[in-house]
Amino acid sequence: MAQKPSIPKGTRDFNPQEVAKRNYIFNTIRGAFETFGFQPIETPSFENSETLMGKYGDEGDRLIFKILNSGEFLSMFNISLVESIKTILFNFQLYLKEVNDFSEESTDAFKDNFLKEYPKIFLKEKKIKLEESKTNFNQLANDIWYFIDLHIIRQGEVEKLKLADNDTLSYLTMTVLGGFSLNLAPKYMSDYISEKALRYDLTVPFARYVVQHQNEIEFPFKRYQIQPVWRADRPQKGRFREFYQCDADVVGSTSLWQEVEFIQLYDTVFSALKLEGVTIKINNRKILSGIAEVIGASDKLIDFTVALDKLDKIGEDKVKEEMLSKGISEAGISKLQPLFTLSGSFESQIESLKGILSTSKEGKKGIEELAFINEAISELGLTTATLQLDVTLARGLNYYTGAIFEVAAPKTVQMGSIGGGGRYDDLTSIFGMKDVLSGVGISFGLDRIYLVLEELGLFPETVNKNVDVLFINFGDKEALFCLKAIKQLRSEGINTELYPEADKMKKQMNHANKRNIPFVVLVGEEEIKSNSYTLKNMVSGEQFKIPLAELINHIK
Amino acid sequence: MAQKPSIPKGTRDFNPQEVAKRNYIFNTIRGAFETFGFQPIETPSFENSETLMGKYGDEGDRLIFKILNSGEFLSMFNISLVESIKTILFNFQLYLKEVNDFSEESTDAFKDNFLKEYPKIFLKEKKIKLEESKTNFNQLANDIWYFIDLHIIRQGEVEKLKLADNDTLSYLTMTVLGGFSLNLAPKYMSDYISEKALRYDLTVPFARYVVQHQNEIEFPFKRYQIQPVWRADRPQKGRFREFYQCDADVVGSTSLWQEVEFIQLYDTVFSALKLEGVTIKINNRKILSGIAEVIGASDKLIDFTVALDKLDKIGEDKVKEEMLSKGISEAGISKLQPLFTLSGSFESQIESLKGILSTSKEGKKGIEELAFINEAISELGLTTATLQLDVTLARGLNYYTGAIFEVAAPKTVQMGSIGGGGRYDDLTSIFGMKDVLSGVGISFGLDRIYLVLEELGLFPETVNKNVDVLFINFGDKEALFCLKAIKQLRSEGINTELYPEADKMKKQMNHANKRNIPFVVLVGEEEIKSNSYTLKNMVSGEQFKIPLAELINHIK
Repeated sequence: MAQKPSIPKGTRDFNPQEVAKRNYIFNTIRGAFETFGFQPIETPSFENSETLMGKYGDEGDRLIFKILNSGEFLSMFNISLVESIKTILFNFQLYLKEVNDFSEESTDAFKDNFLKEYPKIFLKEKKIKLEESKTNFNQLANDIWYFIDLHIIRQGEVEKLKLADNDTLSYLTMTVLGGFSLNLAPKYMSDYISEKALRYDLTVPFARYVVQHQNEIEFPFKRYQIQPVWRADRPQKGRFREFYQCDADVVGSTSLWQEVEFIQLYDTVFSALKLEGVTIKINNRKILSGIAEVIGASDKLIDFTVALDKLDKIGEDKVKEEMLSKGISEAGISKLQPLFTLSGSFESQIESLKGILSTSKEGKKGIEELAFINEAISELGLTTATLQLDVTLARGLNYYTGAIFEVAAPKTVQMGSIGGGGRYDDLTSIFGMKDVLSGVGISFGLDRIYLVLEELGLFPETVNKNVDVLFINFGDKEALFCLKAIKQLRSEGINTELYPEADKMKKQMNHANKRNIPFVVLVGEEEIKSNSYTLKNMVSGEQFKIPLAELINHIK
Repeated sequence: MAQKPSIPKGTRDFNPQEVAKRNYIFNTIRGAFETFGFQPIETPSFENSETLMGKYGDEGDRLIFKILNSGEFLSMFNISLVESIKTILFNFQLYLKEVNDFSEESTDAFKDNFLKEYPKIFLKEKKIKLEESKTNFNQLANDIWYFIDLHIIRQGEVEKLKLADNDTLSYLTMTVLGGFSLNLAPKYMSDYISEKALRYDLTVPFARYVVQHQNEIEFPFKRYQIQPVWRADRPQKGRFREFYQCDADVVGSTSLWQEVEFIQLYDTVFSALKLEGVTIKINNRKILSGIAEVIGASDKLIDFTVALDKLDKIGEDKVKEEMLSKGISEAGISKLQPLFTLSGSFESQIESLKGILSTSKEGKKGIEELAFINEAISELGLTTATLQLDVTLARGLNYYTGAIFEVAAPKTVQMGSIGGGGRYDDLTSIFGMKDVLSGVGISFGLDRIYLVLEELGLFPETVNKNVDVLFINFGDKEALFCLKAIKQLRSEGINTELYPEADKMKKQMNHANKRNIPFVVLVGEEEIKSNSYTLKNMVSGEQFKIPLAELINHIK
C-alpha cells in the first residue's frame, strides 16, 4: 500500500483531546441520567435484519448498514437457483413429451397446473438450499417461468427442449439463469447475503430489549443508553455515518410527571455543562390533531403540520399557500389566523389555544396536558433553561402521540436542535408484545453539543487528562530511582511518565513542552545522594530541589 | 412478527447490573492507563476493507465482518457484466462475418488477438461500470471467453452467432451470463458488494492511525484504546462475536523500561481490582530463536515453538514426538533436555538458559533483556502479582520480536489468559510509513476478567449505581412537593426517583423492594404541613419524620 491510509467517509478518528472533551459531555449526561434514576443498558452493535428493517420507513431502510454473511453464501444461492430452473425445465420437458403439443394453450396449461405445486418441489430437492422464511417460492416459480417464456418459448425452442439431452438441458438452463441473474437475482439474493445490520438508532433496539427481557424487567422501566449508531447517509458538515446517541426513556407509565422530569433533566444537563440560555420547546400531538380537526383537515394532519413547521423559515403567506395547495380549504386556513400571531408567555399562548380549540375534545386534552406541565415547571423552576410552547413543533409526528420536545442552543450560536424527544404509545407492539407500553423519552445530540461548547469556549481547562509530570531519564541507575518515586505519584492519582530513553536533555525537555506537560522532574547523581528531586515548573520556569512527600503535595 | 425477538448469535445484551460491573473494570483499567501516562484515542467501528484485509492471515481475513455497500451495487455489477459479454460477442460476430471461418483455428485466432486488446474496450464502454482497481480485466475477458467457448462454440452455435440479429445476440448473451453467474460472479462481485469492514482488533487501526496522523503525533506516543471489536468466529462459551479490547501501546521507543512499566501496569490494575495472585508470564522471542538456532532448527522456529508451547498440556514425551515428526533432529532435541526441566526462580532459570544458549548471539541478547527487566522489577516490587519466566510462552510469535507477555488468573479459578502482549518491530510499515516504529503493548481481556471477578465475588457492593431513594406518590399536590425535595437530593448527587403514578401504596412499596431501592420517602398531608419527610429504611424497616437537610445527610 503506497498511499497514505484513510478512513471511510463519514467516519472520524478522535485524538486524545477530542476523546477527553467528548467524555466530559458523556459523563455529564450520564451523571444526570443516574441522579434522575435512569439505569444503563447496552445492546449489540448489530441486530438481526428483521429487527430493524421496516421500522424506519423506506428511506430509513435504505440507510441501514447491512453486514455481509460470512462463508460461501453467493455460490450456495447460485447453485440453488440453477437447480430450481433445471427442475422446472425438466418437468416441463416431461410434460411436453407426454402431450407433444407446443401451442400456447398447452404451455399455459402446464404453467397453471404445475406452478401451483411448485413450492413443494423446491423444498424436496436437496440441492436447492433456499429457505421458506427468506424466499417466496410462488413468486420465484413465476419469475423463473417469465424467463423460460422469454428465452425458450418465445424463441421457438420448445421443441428443442422436448428433445433435449442433459447437455442441452443445462445449456437452456444457463440461458434462463442469465436472464434471471441480470434482472431479479439481486432482489432474491439480498436476504441470503445479509442477515444482520448495524444499529440505526437506540429506540428500536430498546423496544426489542424490553420485549425480549419483559419478564426480568420491573416496570415502569427507566433506562438510559449511550452508544454509537450507524447510518449510510450522505456525509456532510456535522452529519456522520457513525455517531453516538444518548437516550433516556421511561416505559410503562403514562404519568405526565415524566414529562416534567425530562424538562428538568434537560435543564440539569445543560446547566452542568455551563451552557446557559437553551430553550426547551414543547408541543403536543393532540394540539396539532385538534387544530387539524377544527379546520376540517384531520385527514391531512401530516401535510398540515409539515407546512406549519415551516412558519419560522418561509413566513405566514407561504405557509398558507402550501396548505391551500395540499387541499386545505380557505375557510379552514382562515380559522388558523390566531395561530400565526401566537406569541407571548406560555400562559397567554395556552389562553389563545383554548379559544381556537374550544370545539375539539382532543385539542382540549392537549391544552390540559401542556398546562399541567407548565404549572409544575413554574413551581419547580429551571436553573438556566427556558421552557417555551411552540405549536409549530412537529418533530417525529409519525410516532409521538403526546408531548413533543426539541431543545434549541442559545441564540448566540447557529445550530440546529441539540436534543429532542416525546411521548409515544405502544413502543413494543412492533415486536408482538401484548401489553401496551406507553413511553416517553429524550435524546441528546452529542456532536452538536460538542460544537456549541467548542464555539462558546465552555470546555473546562481541566477536561484534558494530560500527563501531569515527566521524569527526565539520565540513565538506567537514575531511571530506576525515578521509577520508585513514580510508583508513589501514580498511587496518589498523579499521571506520571518516565522518558523512556536517556536522550539528550534538550530533546526530553522539548518533548515535555510539545505535550504541554506542566511539570518535569530531574534526578541526577546529586539528587540520588540526597534522596531528593528537582522539580521544574514548565510554565513559570521555577525550580526546587525537594523530598518526595513535598513533590507529591506540590503537583497534586 | 409473532415470535419473541432475539439477537444475533455471539452477541449480548447487558442489563443495568452487568453494565455497572463492566464499567467498574473499564474505569479501573482506564484510571491506571492514565496514571501511567497513556492517552485515549478512538477509531471508527469500520475501516476501509483494504486497511484490514491481509493483516491477520487467511483465517483472520475470513473472520472479518464485511459491510454491504449501500445502493444498487448488484444491479450495477450485473448490467456491467451483461454489457461486457455482449461487447465480446458483438466483436466476435463482426470477426466471423469477415473471415466466415468457423474452425477451431479461426476462433482461437480471434481469441488470441482480440483478448489482448480487451481491457481497453471494457474501459471505453460507458455501460460497463467496472473499475480497474477492483477487477482484473484480462482475467475477466478470459473467464468470459471460457463460457463463450462452452456455451456457444462447443454447442455448434457459432454460425448462429454470425447470423444473429440483436434479439438472438441478447439470447446468446444470457446463456453465457448464466454460466458465468453460476461459477464466477461471486468472485468478481465481492469487491463491488463491500468496501468496508468492522474492526477486527485495535492494533491494525492503531497502526493506520499512527501513519495517517504521523505529523500531529509527538513520539514516543503512548496511547490507550478501549473499544469493541467484531469477529465472525463460531460462538462458544466465553467467545463472542462482539467484545471489547482494552489496549495500551507505546510506539517510537525501544527502551526496555517500557516492558518494566507494562509489568507494573498489569500489577496496578489487578491489585486495584483486588484480584490477587495473578501470574505475569514473560518470555522473549530472541530466547526462542536462540534455542531453535542451537538445536539446528532455525528454519523450523514456528513448528518448534508450537510444540514447546504444549509442554504443560501434553508433557515432555509428546512434545519430543511432535518435534521429531516436524523434522527436528534427535540430536537437536537432546540438547533441549535442560529446557524441559527448567524451573525455580527467575534468576536460576536465567542461569540455566545461559548454559543452553552460550553459542547463540541472539539467545544471549534475549537473556540480557529478560535479566534487565527482572532486576528492575525486583527493585521496584510488585503489589499482588508475580513475574514468572516461561520459556514455552510463544503467543503471537508471528509478530512479536522481543518480550512476550501473558497473564494467568489466580490458580483457584479455571480460566485461560486474562491478558497478553509483547514487543513488535515496525508496526507501521504495512501502511507504507518510512520510519521504523518499534512498539510494545499489552491488552486486558475484559470478558474473562469479568468472569473471574464474578466467580471470586470480587465486585464491590457499591458497583451498582442503583437508585438510592424512591419518593412515594400520593397525588399531584404531594408529588409536586416531593419534586422540590428531589431536586435538592439530585443536586447532592443522590440518585432519586418519584414513583410516577399515585398507585396504591403497597404497589409502590413493592416496586421499591423489587428494585432493591434502600430508602423510601413518604409525604402526605401532614408532612406537607410540617414541611418534613418520612424516611423509611427498606432494609431495617426503621422510619423517621425529619426535615430535608437531615434527610439528605441520612441518605448521602
